[in-house]
Amino acid sequence: MNASTHRTEITLDPDVPLVRITREFDAPPAKVFQAHVDAELFAQWNGPRNTTMRIDHHDCRTGGSYRYVHSVDGFDAGFNGCFHEVRPSELIVQTFSYEGMPDGVALEKLVFEDLGDGRTRLTSTSLVDSFADRDAFVASGMEVGVQEGYERLDEILAR
Amino acid sequence: MNASTHRTEITLDPDVPLVRITREFDAPPAKVFQAHVDAELFAQWNGPRNTTMRIDHHDCRTGGSYRYVHSVDGFDAGFNGCFHEVRPSELIVQTFSYEGMPDGVALEKLVFEDLGDGRTRLTSTSLVDSFADRDAFVASGMEVGVQEGYERLDEILAR
Repeated sequence: MNASTHRTEITLDPDVPLVRITREFDAPPAKVFQAHVDAELFAQWNGPRNTTMRIDHHDCRTGGSYRYVHSVDGFDAGFNGCFHEVRPSELIVQTFSYEGMPDGVALEKLVFEDLGDGRTRLTSTSLVDSFADRDAFVASGMEVGVQEGYERLDEILAR
Repeated sequence: MNASTHRTEITLDPDVPLVRITREFDAPPAKVFQAHVDAELFAQWNGPRNTTMRIDHHDCRTGGSYRYVHSVDGFDAGFNGCFHEVRPSELIVQTFSYEGMPDGVALEKLVFEDLGDGRTRLTSTSLVDSFADRDAFVASGMEVGVQEGYERLDEILAR
């Protein structure tokens, strides 16, 4: 299967203020996981294509933290959070804030599921404390950033 | 006002899977905040009275993490999380897991509000990703632990 045929599914939970993003990758869980943990690899794919990415720190282990800055046309957007749990090739639980709205914090879970044959399903959920904030986040154009980021990740995994 | 007259209000949000706990203290925000940040003080009040508390680590700063163990009658219960943001005398945003149910993670916000006259209102919210988990948490007897813990905190603040 060609990597570009993988669809990114974004669904809004009807009961709780949560977004669920599901995407398959043509690489085993260990490799997809590593592209999240390794700061240098992470910087090569996270965010939309028109973005310059600068990692401030990316200490992806249980109890660690991260901060990075996306720059687009001279505009800087900082993001930060802490890693609640990092379970190799299986799970990352982290917090996430956009520094332009520091009081809006999301709890994120990334689950790496082994589909066999060297394939992985990544399910990522973002939980916030209001439906209005969840819907504003989705309406902000995060979809393009997620889709383009995962296409860039496909390219790294295919190397 | 006598410290023992302060009520602990526990409310379940009707719209999102969140518990809100509100309590006033006869001490200024800086002092109530310090009793959360300082590991030695925190160990003296957190949890119900019949509990022995052992702090594994308590690095209460933005990007830090914590782990502690409550022991009751030979039974150990471990809790851990990371500190997303710690804003002196104002705010602590952290994650929280009971290690007996490691996949149930809560996002917690503690807001320290200055009521003047050396008094503080502490509002603490816990957000999880399902109403069933939220309600099970409340039904587990957390109310006793929270109330007794805050009574012990009153005693420390009165020193």
